[in-house]
Amino acid sequence: MPKYAKDVSRTLGLPPGSLVHIGEQKLETPLITIFSCDVDHCAEKIASTAADAFVPTDRPGVLWINVDGLHDTELIARIGQQFHLHPLVLEDILNTDQRPKLEDYESYLLVVLKMLTWDEKSSEILAEQVSLVLGKGFVLSFQEEKGSDVFNPVREALRAGKGRLRKSEADFLAYSLMDAVVDNYFVIMERLGDNIEELEDELVTGVQPQVLRQVHQLRRENIFLRKSVWPMREVVGGLERGEFPLMNHGTRIYLRDLYDHTIQVMDTVETFRDMLGGMLDLYLSSVSFRLNQVMKVLTIIATIFIPLTFLAGLWGMNFHFMPELRQAWGYPAALLLMAVIAGWMLYLFKKNKWI
Amino acid sequence: MPKYAKDVSRTLGLPPGSLVHIGEQKLETPLITIFSCDVDHCAEKIASTAADAFVPTDRPGVLWINVDGLHDTELIARIGQQFHLHPLVLEDILNTDQRPKLEDYESYLLVVLKMLTWDEKSSEILAEQVSLVLGKGFVLSFQEEKGSDVFNPVREALRAGKGRLRKSEADFLAYSLMDAVVDNYFVIMERLGDNIEELEDELVTGVQPQVLRQVHQLRRENIFLRKSVWPMREVVGGLERGEFPLMNHGTRIYLRDLYDHTIQVMDTVETFRDMLGGMLDLYLSSVSFRLNQVMKVLTIIATIFIPLTFLAGLWGMNFHFMPELRQAWGYPAALLLMAVIAGWMLYLFKKNKWI
Amino acid sequence: MPKYAKDVSRTLGLPPGSLVHIGEQKLETPLITIFSCDVDHCAEKIASTAADAFVPTDRPGVLWINVDGLHDTELIARIGQQFHLHPLVLEDILNTDQRPKLEDYESYLLVVLKMLTWDEKSSEILAEQVSLVLGKGFVLSFQEEKGSDVFNPVREALRAGKGRLRKSEADFLAYSLMDAVVDNYFVIMERLGDNIEELEDELVTGVQPQVLRQVHQLRRENIFLRKSVWPMREVVGGLERGEFPLMNHGTRIYLRDLYDHTIQVMDTVETFRDMLGGMLDLYLSSVSFRLNQVMKVLTIIATIFIPLTFLAGLWGMNFHFMPELRQAWGYPAALLLMAVIAGWMLYLFKKNKWI
Amino acid sequence: MPKYAKDVSRTLGLPPGSLVHIGEQKLETPLITIFSCDVDHCAEKIASTAADAFVPTDRPGVLWINVDGLHDTELIARIGQQFHLHPLVLEDILNTDQRPKLEDYESYLLVVLKMLTWDEKSSEILAEQVSLVLGKGFVLSFQEEKGSDVFNPVREALRAGKGRLRKSEADFLAYSLMDAVVDNYFVIMERLGDNIEELEDELVTGVQPQVLRQVHQLRRENIFLRKSVWPMREVVGGLERGEFPLMNHGTRIYLRDLYDHTIQVMDTVETFRDMLGGMLDLYLSSVSFRLNQVMKVLTIIATIFIPLTFLAGLWGMNFHFMPELRQAWGYPAALLLMAVIAGWMLYLFKKNKWI
Amino acid sequence: MPKYAKDVSRTLGLPPGSLVHIGEQKLETPLITIFSCDVDHCAEKIASTAADAFVPTDRPGVLWINVDGLHDTELIARIGQQFHLHPLVLEDILNTDQRPKLEDYESYLLVVLKMLTWDEKSSEILAEQVSLVLGKGFVLSFQEEKGSDVFNPVREALRAGKGRLRKSEADFLAYSLMDAVVDNYFVIMERLGDNIEELEDELVTGVQPQVLRQVHQLRRENIFLRKSVWPMREVVGGLERGEFPLMNHGTRIYLRDLYDHTIQVMDTVETFRDMLGGMLDLYLSSVSFRLNQVMKVLTIIATIFIPLTFLAGLWGMNFHFMPELRQAWGYPAALLLMAVIAGWMLYLFKKNKWI
Repeated sequence: MPKYAKDVSRTLGLPPGSLVHIGEQKLETPLITIFSCDVDHCAEKIASTAADAFVPTDRPGVLWINVDGLHDTELIARIGQQFHLHPLVLEDILNTDQRPKLEDYESYLLVVLKMLTWDEKSSEILAEQVSLVLGKGFVLSFQEEKGSDVFNPVREALRAGKGRLRKSEADFLAYSLMDAVVDNYFVIMERLGDNIEELEDELVTGVQPQVLRQVHQLRRENIFLRKSVWPMREVVGGLERGEFPLMNHGTRIYLRDLYDHTIQVMDTVETFRDMLGGMLDLYLSSVSFRLNQVMKVLTIIATIFIPLTFLAGLWGMNFHFMPELRQAWGYPAALLLMAVIAGWMLYLFKKNKWI
Repeated sequence: MPKYAKDVSRTLGLPPGSLVHIGEQKLETPLITIFSCDVDHCAEKIASTAADAFVPTDRPGVLWINVDGLHDTELIARIGQQFHLHPLVLEDILNTDQRPKLEDYESYLLVVLKMLTWDEKSSEILAEQVSLVLGKGFVLSFQEEKGSDVFNPVREALRAGKGRLRKSEADFLAYSLMDAVVDNYFVIMERLGDNIEELEDELVTGVQPQVLRQVHQLRRENIFLRKSVWPMREVVGGLERGEFPLMNHGTRIYLRDLYDHTIQVMDTVETFRDMLGGMLDLYLSSVSFRLNQVMKVLTIIATIFIPLTFLAGLWGMNFHFMPELRQAWGYPAALLLMAVIAGWMLYLFKKNKWI
Repeated sequence: MPKYAKDVSRTLGLPPGSLVHIGEQKLETPLITIFSCDVDHCAEKIASTAADAFVPTDRPGVLWINVDGLHDTELIARIGQQFHLHPLVLEDILNTDQRPKLEDYESYLLVVLKMLTWDEKSSEILAEQVSLVLGKGFVLSFQEEKGSDVFNPVREALRAGKGRLRKSEADFLAYSLMDAVVDNYFVIMERLGDNIEELEDELVTGVQPQVLRQVHQLRRENIFLRKSVWPMREVVGGLERGEFPLMNHGTRIYLRDLYDHTIQVMDTVETFRDMLGGMLDLYLSSVSFRLNQVMKVLTIIATIFIPLTFLAGLWGMNFHFMPELRQAWGYPAALLLMAVIAGWMLYLFKKNKWI
Repeated sequence: MPKYAKDVSRTLGLPPGSLVHIGEQKLETPLITIFSCDVDHCAEKIASTAADAFVPTDRPGVLWINVDGLHDTELIARIGQQFHLHPLVLEDILNTDQRPKLEDYESYLLVVLKMLTWDEKSSEILAEQVSLVLGKGFVLSFQEEKGSDVFNPVREALRAGKGRLRKSEADFLAYSLMDAVVDNYFVIMERLGDNIEELEDELVTGVQPQVLRQVHQLRRENIFLRKSVWPMREVVGGLERGEFPLMNHGTRIYLRDLYDHTIQVMDTVETFRDMLGGMLDLYLSSVSFRLNQVMKVLTIIATIFIPLTFLAGLWGMNFHFMPELRQAWGYPAALLLMAVIAGWMLYLFKKNKWI
Repeated sequence: MPKYAKDVSRTLGLPPGSLVHIGEQKLETPLITIFSCDVDHCAEKIASTAADAFVPTDRPGVLWINVDGLHDTELIARIGQQFHLHPLVLEDILNTDQRPKLEDYESYLLVVLKMLTWDEKSSEILAEQVSLVLGKGFVLSFQEEKGSDVFNPVREALRAGKGRLRKSEADFLAYSLMDAVVDNYFVIMERLGDNIEELEDELVTGVQPQVLRQVHQLRRENIFLRKSVWPMREVVGGLERGEFPLMNHGTRIYLRDLYDHTIQVMDTVETFRDMLGGMLDLYLSSVSFRLNQVMKVLTIIATIFIPLTFLAGLWGMNFHFMPELRQAWGYPAALLLMAVIAGWMLYLFKKNKWI
């Protein structure tokens, strides 16, 4: 269950810029991966302790330091010092309850994203915060967990040296990481879409109560998704339009493509919202309609038999002087009367199109 | 059923600009039609293999290459090389899950549109992506299927040499193709409008459950339509306002007309949405009202007869000492009492305006 | 019933600028009225055939040509040639399914309006398209039907020579015609407002099913009205703000007044929408509440008598050994027991505030 | 009941600028109050006839002419001539169905406001139009009725000479009058707020049908209020921001304060709308829930007794050969069977949490 | 219960700028705390009477005067004189029904905020107005109650001299106070979020009526919260963007951080709104579904037994000539017939998927 407001209260009363990790600790020890590439070769290093993490940045090419695991505030602070990051940047990286945003600190850019994964077991969307710092010649990326899945294509491309990645500057690497995150949204879209189509089929066959809960759950996930995706528009749009000297002109075209993808995700989220709203309406109307059908059956049966039962009770009374009871035609006449009443009622129901 | 998110996941992990066809393969072999026209004559060629597709572009007049069928990525890549298209343009052409958009690549413009057709059998709107590349002296158009129907008037006009088409430059040809696509939307509007009016008539006559499903289906189609039409506004508006040197002043007036058409389609989509929402309300209210009517009948019948049946049961008891049973006036008095009770209840119902 | 999308499909496949009349033919022969006025005198001519329609435009003063009936495309085309109108202008005039719009063709302005009339018989709003072309020294107006009612005050004012009309240039005449159209909207507002108030009174007295249909119909008419009025804002606002040399400064103040009227109409349309939405809620809630009342009556009656009837049935059984039946106190005791049960139930209902 | 569209149709066919009073005549003879003040003294005159109304405007200080009652169009026209007002200004003053607006006529400003009062008897908001004309050295105010209540504090301040009023120019007087009108809105807010809180308390105690009507009525009043207050934002905001030479810099700060008040009123109106919508939801849900409760009681009683009554009827049949009737254990066994059935049903209901 | 419109009517008829305290008196005597700090030392004084409150402002460093309790208008007026505040500023400080706003008075800035606290007992949000006046070298803060909790961290930081607080100018102190207020919003968010999650769990287990009231109450609190938080966006955004010379460049980065926090709070408020709306839908649908279930049970029982009871009544009639009663097979045949009818009905119900 996505928590709506994480325990930010822990930082209450601390001066701004204090480094406190807000969020779950998802890894035991932080893992630091360092890629140091230029057009010709690409060095890769996995640093297990903080001391190994710092490589000089004065060499040509691009340096990419990826940190998995944010609970070691000491380590984050050291990286911050090394790259001259503002204390508020470090605070933002550590507070995993941020909304996606783009901040310009003149010599570097901070991009905060949400990486989303679909949890099959609970049919929920899990969010993980990814912070990117793009500076002259380096990219720092911070994740809560080992982000092996989503960033791996970028790693492969760096190792293989295919495509533009090693030929370009740090801005293209930052774009590639963002692209990897946004591409992953489409997987979430597919899963949600599949679930919605399944539910629609179930709605057509019948009105089970669990359908309602599933529609509610999907709406919740969609609200959650919307909250994560909506600010992405500003982030990517800002990068594309903004006059950031760190962003080369060639990368802009790719950012426009990324912006299109973001808009497409948002469009789909809105379509899902409309679809789920429509399904709820359909469910409610179906329940109403079925109640109507049930009541009609009850009413028809009751309306026909209640007067007949009364008549039977009437002639079942024990008054001594009930002359009709003694006549030979009494019983057939009573049966006939009852048949006439029942037939007349059926005729009325037919006329009113109830049956 | 329109799929909400096509299998974009197939491209996950590929570097941006990788050419993968996303969508169904709707044709066996791509079909390439080439029109090469100037004011005086017009050459038309159908290329069955990729090798025939490339004609030199250094001749005067307008060159229009139309490609039906997108699954042959090799072919698309070759055309891209020939016309110096950016890899992202080719990616956009092949990914048929794009939203309509306009992109300026300085020496050419990319316009992505949705061509909509109404499928009579399933009462659904089918969408097909049409991508146009407008460059200096040429127009490339890419469709998923053989688009014989919609672009035929343009072909006829080119052959006949009537109107402005052969007298103008490539921008007017591109406008004509877009106009053909948008004109086709009005057919969809008519079909949807007819369906909505039919449903309204059905709603007036009675409350069938299938009406509800049809309203739901129409709402879904309308949501789908909206998603396709809404971005068209930006596309056409952008072409009209934007300072693109490829767009001549004379064509601008026609683009403004096209923009008006787009706005009109959007207006109608919004009106449909309001109408369908109102119909759902009407349906729900009618069901509620009918339930009320059914319950009233049941209540009136039950309320009158239940006390009478009780009385009949009372005098049907087998107690030995029930003095009234032995009186000659017992039975008539009982009948009278019952009639009085029934009459009084009817009076109460009348007073409360139930009957 | 306002058709949502007129048969625009007839123009499919025609090149842009083709003249096809879209809409019903409402008149047998078009009627052309020509006013040619300056400050001192005003000549009025009714042309029955197309040949009479063209008077030279090089004289001082204002020329107003009003055409009633649009199906004679030949005639419209000839007027277009005479006044050098762009083919798209003529297409817009003939296509009566336009939304209100303002288009600047540099040497003249095209204004498309919707003239609305209230049809008493069907309680519907009927729309008729009015197109105005304002040029240097002339105004052309095109209507679908003989617009005797709405433009008559302008004709009277021209004949009488009172007010600013004959002292001003063509722009004031165009303003006066638009003002006549917008003034007429207030009549529609009054009718709709009256109908809404009547319905509200009916809602207070009871819950008739036809009220629901009437609310639905009024909502539909309001949606239709909204679609016609909303774009008027842009049209009149554009005229007021826009830097059109054809609009004199003195006329601007009047256009601002017209703009205020348009906003006021829109405000009222929005208020109607809210009112009608509220009435639907009230209707639905009333139906629910009444259903509740009905069910309570049924439940009270049934709950009291069902146990009593069971007891009566119990002592009506024919078992041979039912000792209580033989006791003298059996019958009174049974009656007492029944009375106690009934009383206890009534007490419970009272306590739960059901009665 | 606020009429949604007053009888504007009366002006149909009249040229723009024709003076017709639209609205009810609320006073027999118009009352004209003239304040002519400077820093040192303040002359006050009540003019009973039109002739007295005109005092020369070439003296120093501020002249304030307040006219109560608008039906004497002759008088309004004379004042218009005296102060060189545009005919459209007079038309706006007389048409009391205007929305609040601000219009700049270069040498003077026209401000149209709505003065709202709460009618205790009908629990309705009554609106009265107040038009202000602010010129160099004078303020004209036009009201429909004797506005003694709302403008009295301004009169008192003028007489007493306290505060900035007599030290400032006409713009501060105009501000003071507007401030008096807006301050009065808070009284309406308080009344509406009190009514809403009362209704909420009633909703908690029970579901009376009149609550529904009251909620509906409050929603209607709120819609009406919204329509009056919303355009005030533009009016006051326009005055504050606009570059009107008539507005001194010192008055701007006061206008900003007035603007804040207007925004606050709008905020409250929106909050009321949300509250009332929420109350309707709560009402509807409560009705649904209660219906559910009622139906449960009926179902429990009916489900328990209907089978028992059947059994009683079964053994009440008069077949000659029903062996169980002759057994001594027949009756006790029947009773036991019935008790077992009833107990089992109660157990089932308990298990399903119905009771 | 948050009052929607406080008794502003008390100020009716007073000239603008009159000092009247609007709101509850929450303290007996106002408490004045004075911090006078520079980089090296920090003097702290608590003034119990008004006379002590005024310290000269011509010393270097930052002066912070915090006033708890606003009912002593005399005191506020004296402080106003001392710091040359505009009368409208004092009016705003005293009227605790303000919405958050930012006003620029050139030599100082007025910031009005809402401090929110969660009242555990009533599960309500309590609001208290905090006004800040930021001038050259001083910050004045005005609260309704002793604000010991929220501003204490700032006091501690001033005393300890850690962080930027004592090294910066007055603008950073003002930022720190605003940050303390906004940080506190997250606590409210957490409480609301916890309550919403609890309610969702309750909704899953069953449909209790109090859940409905709790959802309604949470919606009300959320509306209230929204009204307080929404204008904060403009306030903080205005401070960040605005060209106020009082705001140093270094503080801007911190204000951007504060702005992010505000947006995040607003996001969460919107998410809560969607969640609560979804919960209401779920509740209503569940109630509908359960009603359906209840009615089905009733209908099945009644439909099976009503015809059987009729038959039992039929053969319980006392007609003398009912031949079947005398047959030995009569009773078994009757029982068989009843069993067949019941079985057939059960089969029908099964077929229609009712059981």
